[in-house]
Amino acid sequence: MKMILVIHGPNLDLLGKREPAIYGKVTLTEINRALRKAAKKHKVTLKIVQSNHEGEIVDLIGKSRNKFCGLLINPAAYTHTSVAIRDAISGSGILAVEVHLSNIHRREEFRRQSLISAVVSGTVMGFGAKSYTLGLSALLDLL
Amino acid sequence: MKMILVIHGPNLDLLGKREPAIYGKVTLTEINRALRKAAKKHKVTLKIVQSNHEGEIVDLIGKSRNKFCGLLINPAAYTHTSVAIRDAISGSGILAVEVHLSNIHRREEFRRQSLISAVVSGTVMGFGAKSYTLGLSALLDLL
Amino acid sequence: MKMILVIHGPNLDLLGKREPAIYGKVTLTEINRALRKAAKKHKVTLKIVQSNHEGEIVDLIGKSRNKFCGLLINPAAYTHTSVAIRDAISGSGILAVEVHLSNIHRREEFRRQSLISAVVSGTVMGFGAKSYTLGLSALLDLL
Amino acid sequence: MKMILVIHGPNLDLLGKREPAIYGKVTLTEINRALRKAAKKHKVTLKIVQSNHEGEIVDLIGKSRNKFCGLLINPAAYTHTSVAIRDAISGSGILAVEVHLSNIHRREEFRRQSLISAVVSGTVMGFGAKSYTLGLSALLDLL
Amino acid sequence: MKMILVIHGPNLDLLGKREPAIYGKVTLTEINRALRKAAKKHKVTLKIVQSNHEGEIVDLIGKSRNKFCGLLINPAAYTHTSVAIRDAISGSGILAVEVHLSNIHRREEFRRQSLISAVVSGTVMGFGAKSYTLGLSALLDLL
Amino acid sequence: MKMILVIHGPNLDLLGKREPAIYGKVTLTEINRALRKAAKKHKVTLKIVQSNHEGEIVDLIGKSRNKFCGLLINPAAYTHTSVAIRDAISGSGILAVEVHLSNIHRREEFRRQSLISAVVSGTVMGFGAKSYTLGLSALLDLL
Amino acid sequence: MKMILVIHGPNLDLLGKREPAIYGKVTLTEINRALRKAAKKHKVTLKIVQSNHEGEIVDLIGKSRNKFCGLLINPAAYTHTSVAIRDAISGSGILAVEVHLSNIHRREEFRRQSLISAVVSGTVMGFGAKSYTLGLSALLDLL
Amino acid sequence: MKMILVIHGPNLDLLGKREPAIYGKVTLTEINRALRKAAKKHKVTLKIVQSNHEGEIVDLIGKSRNKFCGLLINPAAYTHTSVAIRDAISGSGILAVEVHLSNIHRREEFRRQSLISAVVSGTVMGFGAKSYTLGLSALLDLL
Amino acid sequence: MKMILVIHGPNLDLLGKREPAIYGKVTLTEINRALRKAAKKHKVTLKIVQSNHEGEIVDLIGKSRNKFCGLLINPAAYTHTSVAIRDAISGSGILAVEVHLSNIHRREEFRRQSLISAVVSGTVMGFGAKSYTLGLSALLDLL
Amino acid sequence: MKMILVIHGPNLDLLGKREPAIYGKVTLTEINRALRKAAKKHKVTLKIVQSNHEGEIVDLIGKSRNKFCGLLINPAAYTHTSVAIRDAISGSGILAVEVHLSNIHRREEFRRQSLISAVVSGTVMGFGAKSYTLGLSALLDLL
Amino acid sequence: MKMILVIHGPNLDLLGKREPAIYGKVTLTEINRALRKAAKKHKVTLKIVQSNHEGEIVDLIGKSRNKFCGLLINPAAYTHTSVAIRDAISGSGILAVEVHLSNIHRREEFRRQSLISAVVSGTVMGFGAKSYTLGLSALLDLL
Amino acid sequence: MKMILVIHGPNLDLLGKREPAIYGKVTLTEINRALRKAAKKHKVTLKIVQSNHEGEIVDLIGKSRNKFCGLLINPAAYTHTSVAIRDAISGSGILAVEVHLSNIHRREEFRRQSLISAVVSGTVMGFGAKSYTLGLSALLDLL
Repeated sequence: MKMILVIHGPNLDLLGKREPAIYGKVTLTEINRALRKAAKKHKVTLKIVQSNHEGEIVDLIGKSRNKFCGLLINPAAYTHTSVAIRDAISGSGILAVEVHLSNIHRREEFRRQSLISAVVSGTVMGFGAKSYTLGLSALLDLL
Repeated sequence: MKMILVIHGPNLDLLGKREPAIYGKVTLTEINRALRKAAKKHKVTLKIVQSNHEGEIVDLIGKSRNKFCGLLINPAAYTHTSVAIRDAISGSGILAVEVHLSNIHRREEFRRQSLISAVVSGTVMGFGAKSYTLGLSALLDLL
Repeated sequence: MKMILVIHGPNLDLLGKREPAIYGKVTLTEINRALRKAAKKHKVTLKIVQSNHEGEIVDLIGKSRNKFCGLLINPAAYTHTSVAIRDAISGSGILAVEVHLSNIHRREEFRRQSLISAVVSGTVMGFGAKSYTLGLSALLDLL
Repeated sequence: MKMILVIHGPNLDLLGKREPAIYGKVTLTEINRALRKAAKKHKVTLKIVQSNHEGEIVDLIGKSRNKFCGLLINPAAYTHTSVAIRDAISGSGILAVEVHLSNIHRREEFRRQSLISAVVSGTVMGFGAKSYTLGLSALLDLL
Repeated sequence: MKMILVIHGPNLDLLGKREPAIYGKVTLTEINRALRKAAKKHKVTLKIVQSNHEGEIVDLIGKSRNKFCGLLINPAAYTHTSVAIRDAISGSGILAVEVHLSNIHRREEFRRQSLISAVVSGTVMGFGAKSYTLGLSALLDLL
Repeated sequence: MKMILVIHGPNLDLLGKREPAIYGKVTLTEINRALRKAAKKHKVTLKIVQSNHEGEIVDLIGKSRNKFCGLLINPAAYTHTSVAIRDAISGSGILAVEVHLSNIHRREEFRRQSLISAVVSGTVMGFGAKSYTLGLSALLDLL
Repeated sequence: MKMILVIHGPNLDLLGKREPAIYGKVTLTEINRALRKAAKKHKVTLKIVQSNHEGEIVDLIGKSRNKFCGLLINPAAYTHTSVAIRDAISGSGILAVEVHLSNIHRREEFRRQSLISAVVSGTVMGFGAKSYTLGLSALLDLL
Repeated sequence: MKMILVIHGPNLDLLGKREPAIYGKVTLTEINRALRKAAKKHKVTLKIVQSNHEGEIVDLIGKSRNKFCGLLINPAAYTHTSVAIRDAISGSGILAVEVHLSNIHRREEFRRQSLISAVVSGTVMGFGAKSYTLGLSALLDLL
Repeated sequence: MKMILVIHGPNLDLLGKREPAIYGKVTLTEINRALRKAAKKHKVTLKIVQSNHEGEIVDLIGKSRNKFCGLLINPAAYTHTSVAIRDAISGSGILAVEVHLSNIHRREEFRRQSLISAVVSGTVMGFGAKSYTLGLSALLDLL
Repeated sequence: MKMILVIHGPNLDLLGKREPAIYGKVTLTEINRALRKAAKKHKVTLKIVQSNHEGEIVDLIGKSRNKFCGLLINPAAYTHTSVAIRDAISGSGILAVEVHLSNIHRREEFRRQSLISAVVSGTVMGFGAKSYTLGLSALLDLL
Repeated sequence: MKMILVIHGPNLDLLGKREPAIYGKVTLTEINRALRKAAKKHKVTLKIVQSNHEGEIVDLIGKSRNKFCGLLINPAAYTHTSVAIRDAISGSGILAVEVHLSNIHRREEFRRQSLISAVVSGTVMGFGAKSYTLGLSALLDLL
Repeated sequence: MKMILVIHGPNLDLLGKREPAIYGKVTLTEINRALRKAAKKHKVTLKIVQSNHEGEIVDLIGKSRNKFCGLLINPAAYTHTSVAIRDAISGSGILAVEVHLSNIHRREEFRRQSLISAVVSGTVMGFGAKSYTLGLSALLDLL
């Protein structure tokens, strides 16, 4: 059975509590439940991790090589600053899809550039929690 | 029955013939067929237009006000140069989703900025023809 | 009797409906009525056109040469992107005045630069519909 | 009876003598006469001041609060360098209109940016002495 | 017999009348006559179009695929702003040569960058009407 | 007994009246009272000046040499534009502390750079009137 | 009894040993002693943490929500590179004050921009160890 | 007898006391004495003014029109920020020479650009007090 | 009989051997032969020089004044760095045409700017060896 | 016996597997073996660490003070983003040499700037695994 | 007897013939005659060289070490492009003065930056041939 | 027997005399001796040239094609300005290594960019004379 790695970047554990005007009221638990439900339908297994640590995320992706056939990642704040995560994705050669809850082009200037976009297959953003399930669907379609 | 306006921007009529290394081999006719099929399942009607004319696209969106409940747009080359289409979307107040076949962040520098992204609800890009059906699904979800 | 060409750029047909917080509630019909009334007092005739098409606006100005003695133009979104309209104005040698409903310096960064300003005699902006009648008055004064 | 404050910025006392190719031959005395005549027609009183001192202009605007109902200002060279005048205008909450004799977009690069435009209601420029009377008319219209 | 498509961009219909100090006194009719004469000598046929409409030019190039073996284009003002025409040229795969009457590097800053140059085989500029016949000669040589 | 020079820059006389959403409701008189009270406790005397004139502030600092042992300055709008005040501070060799009522990094782009910061010992900003007493305390500590 | 979280960013454990010309000779232990003494006077408790790990700092702030009523942070090197810490502060909604030992505007170019300043209430910098006690005082004042 | 206006900009009254490592130990009194001595030899009279006020310098130059035949100016800090002094010089049409004690290209970045240089005949800088007498000699030569 | 100076800039002696993917397989000897043949037909004589030395090229152009009636130059690498060659061309007043084998806009960023273009009559680029004969033809046409 | 600290930055554990076109086929184990062999010859001991965690690397360097006499570091992705590692190196005062497998100037734009270079003694890059032994040799030479 | 090296940079041999509107009608021979006359009065000998070759100028300065006590240089076009001449001047440790005939701040953008200014004692520019004699006088004064 | 070309760029003949704080006290003769000694050990012959002339260096590299199997170059000042040397290296196809005595990233801004780095195999910098022998060792390793 296929395994997909799902990574939630920094501060996403605060979801539902943190700035709901921007990120909505859905919690991370609810998003994960929706993801697992969708995964079940497509007969894939998910390994879901949330981490505030750039190094931890790099570790995970670096070791994903033979264990996972795809990566669904919301790099959150590291979208704009992490060359290390970028290198981990392109280095591992894993098929990856980037998702964002909010439309990053409607926010501050420094959030409009993504270091990650250039090493993933595609991006889905701006649809709140729905971005995740659309991203998973796109990822499965690419496999 | 709900009506959705689908706009294909300049040069998309060449799809399947034009630079397949970047845009894939799928033709516009095939994309439209897939869109209509998905629309049928969700019980919405689509009006699909392809145009190379910025002014024509502005006209269409300006008049969409009371006729359509959503807009699915691939602005193609106008993504990077048209303030007029941007103004038409924000002026009409229509719910809009932007799609791109390719991942614009993997291409030339001048293609990495979108004037349109800031006025749509969300963006789906990089999944070839699949970007359209994911975008339609996201749009219906927002309605 | 003198003839003046008045051009309303893209999306101005939406006036009164579109983002009233920025553009006010006055419609284009009301602005045109006010313009014609003022024209009558000064004994000039107006030809008024609204177009969303850059090429159409270029056509109009290119052919204005011997027909009109002045141009009153609100280039709207094309203010920031059209070298073609700029060339048409400077190429036709027509006396031109640029007007804007809103104060473009109070809006987004990309709206603060005008490609048109450098080829007109003067600019009036920020006074809503009143910008038009002041602009017409200035234009007649220059003739 | 309504009182309007009119401020002429640095070097405008040289008008008519200084670089007539750019600023025309009209003197400041003639402009003031035309302004007073227009004011009379609209039944408002004008207080007119010319100053080369940034601090003096800031003083004047700061104390204008309850004395004047509007400000007509040609900030001249301070247009491009004075955050203090900008703050005085936005701090005093007075209704303000900015005027320029010349079209600043047809001049040197550093004159094309205005620190003042973002805190006034509107701007009139490029019509020589006529810019002042149009600006006064616009200001009265806003009151 | 070989067919070549010749496109004259916006405002070139004004040639000979418009700013002769920059563009010379030759009219478009005279340029076309010279082109047809040169074409005759080389036994090729020309289809010549002048258009102020970006979309129209995109349409023409998009449909040129199997009809023409080469494109001679003076994109005029669209040189600096049209990603759509750029995409049309590279998408159609047609062999193209860009010409300009004036030396764009001797003009305003914003005219010194060409979006088109990167998708054509070569460029000829600065020789007035002669640029066209040299460009046609270069194009025929490449065929 | 030690003497400290306190300088309030342009428009600070409007405090409490001007844009209270940004600057709070405290007046300059109240700030000065708090400063004098704190000074008394530390047994130092204050000379407090408010000026809208850049030149006047330069005069004051230039003459402060042997009269004062420290400078507490809120340069307000001149923070971003005055090389002359910067030179006066570094030229006089006086120990200086810069204060701001608001956090300048939460405001417009052009307010985020300070020409003054590089010539003072330290900066306190964002605590409203409290910034002044903290700044005074820091200054006394450095003496 | 109120609890305040104090975070010392990367390399601050080297304080007193590292580049004393810039950071002074005071050690982190001495600073913490001074902070605890001041806290005692104001009857608040401090939790003090030093960490070189961006993720650890994000963890701490993310979990500070209901445990602490204020945050005193010297983000050190992360001042200039961490969007994640910025998001943690604004996401947790905690009242925060930023401190720096040195005046960052007197150092290298890349140290003059702070990603953190825009999400804290205020900043105190340039007074060595004293910056911390002033910052604590300001923080308590805001509570 | 010819009259020359000599203007010393802000903070130059501190000369000899202020940062001698950069500006040398010569005082303004000594420079003025050397200037008067040189003037005497050339049979011209000097009017020498030092001012910290931008507006005052603008006043002086504006009124210099028929009184002086040349201007020798060290604009000091206003070199980099004053469009008003620039306009006063070019507006008065007076023949002007700019001098600097230090070589501004060996100092901070923001001191390397002069707003004044483009409106004077020539510049002498880097020779300490000697810059003034060389500048005077150059000015007399131009007369 | 008319004399034309032809200058080949640095590294062009390597032609045919150096990076044929960019510059083609034609050698400099073959290009010169083609140029002489074309010159013969037009009854002009050519003096052809290849040099890797900027100073040598400046010498040649500086002394070309009364000896040559036109200059055909491929400045190669000096296109992007030599103000001296630019000054030599504009200083000598010679009629000049710039040629490039490759289309410089399809290459690295730093090759897309030409210091030379602004001082020549026109430019021909992108047609390999053919650029030279077209350039010669254009030059003769201008004479 | 002298001790040298060797740090391999993020993703270097993937070496030999990750993008061999850029990084070669040598694995980290092989590099370490070569390093140890070279160390033995020079009679120094190596402590070798690979880490994906910025904070861990900062910890290591901060604690290296009295334990190691030199640092050989390949900061990999952190080369371009880590001010914290930069501060750790300059703060610890350790003698450091930076190495890179690839020539970073032949890669993407954002990889061409190194935050680390300014705080190390020297840099060796572009020679694959050989960069490490050359770097070690250089480091020993400096001791 | 003291020896001074005088270097005239590229194209200065054309003086008097080349663009007299910018550089005046004086020839290099006349300038040299004036320099020798002034030198005689001050009892110094001049070695005067004009060269179009950057390398030659570097050679000359590199070998000037023990032969000359001062350098008077007009680097002309190399002012803006030569790091090698800059290094030669700072490396030789010779006392140098830079002169320019024209005021470089009144010319094209790229001529407004000097790579040389930061390594000379001072600069004289804008006074035509007089710049040289003033520069020589300043140089002798510094010796 | 293998032949290596060693090129020392401009001003390196001054080594040992010129700014020893930056470049050390070793002379070029000593460096060459060390290089020849190392070459002998590896059984290769060196041809060593120092030149201040860009063109001469281009000549040398252009003619190195069949004579040398490797190039060791310290381009000195030309590192930052010479596209011609860059083209010569990439055009000749020779295997090249770039060395610098000093760490260019610790010096002035304009010295931090190398036009040469992108066309060599690797770079060694910051180790004084040792950079050369390490560079030679790296070069031999690549052969």
